Amino acid sequence: MLTRIDHVGIACRNLAEKIAFYEAAFGLRVVSTEVNEAQGVREAMLQVAVSAAGMSCVQLLEPLGADTPVGRFLARRGEGIHHIGYGVTDITAALASIGATGVRLLDARPRHGSMGASVAFLHPADLGGVLTELVQAAEAEPGLAAPDG
Amino acid sequence: MLTRIDHVGIACRNLAEKIAFYEAAFGLRVVSTEVNEAQGVREAMLQVAVSAAGMSCVQLLEPLGADTPVGRFLARRGEGIHHIGYGVTDITAALASIGATGVRLLDARPRHGSMGASVAFLHPADLGGVLTELVQAAEAEPGLAAPDG
Repeated sequence: MLTRIDHVGIACRNLAEKIAFYEAAFGLRVVSTEVNEAQGVREAMLQVAVSAAGMSCVQLLEPLGADTPVGRFLARRGEGIHHIGYGVTDITAALASIGATGVRLLDARPRHGSMGASVAFLHPADLGGVLTELVQAAEAEPGLAAPDG
Repeated sequence: MLTRIDHVGIACRNLAEKIAFYEAAFGLRVVSTEVNEAQGVREAMLQVAVSAAGMSCVQLLEPLGADTPVGRFLARRGEGIHHIGYGVTDITAALASIGATGVRLLDARPRHGSMGASVAFLHPADLGGVLTELVQAAEAEPGLAAPDG
């Protein structure tokens, strides 16, 4: 069901500084930056590896404000690893399968994620405190629900 | 320098329960279980993906006691993501290169990690709160320092 570790999401206070750090210390390069208003973040994807299954990235996340999920995370825990995202080939099927095991879905249907992907989050309380995201990359059939439907 | 996301380390209170959960919810399979007395953990590696660069795994970590790094993490933060491990082909060269950028090395020389790998940790305070591990898989030249020398 899972095809790869798509990304590890890291919450930070200053995106530009953290990008510069990861470039300098690890030689990573930015493959995408974007603002996701719905999730309240400014973000960058830095490629660690690419394989037939797709890319694996470090995702750096700076909150757009204090009253956002990442803003509240920073206030509560400080900077650090925020979530893990796994690649899947069919996010709708994966959500149905995982939901059937009793894991609560924060997103019952996929929504727009980084780089045009379809994404959905699973409830961390059902995953041992791990906020977990499923990611179907944009190249495959997105199967997105309409924004309000 | 980094070849893949080798693993995401997740701290848990009951390894057997968490293995069963990841198998059932995500269809992952255990590729290795071991006790690392030096690090104070009982652990399991569950394969998410494999590519030419190597495996990417979820690493589940149960502390051997309260007075261990993972035991203290659980007491302080509860269950959740503990660290990220990146694959490298030459850990000694990677440590030298990263150390030269000013990042403090928790392990100046590689030590024994999961599945015979050579591993070294970097200081989370220099990485925006992210405990970061470098992993050179056992297939390559290990280059381990002697335990006391």
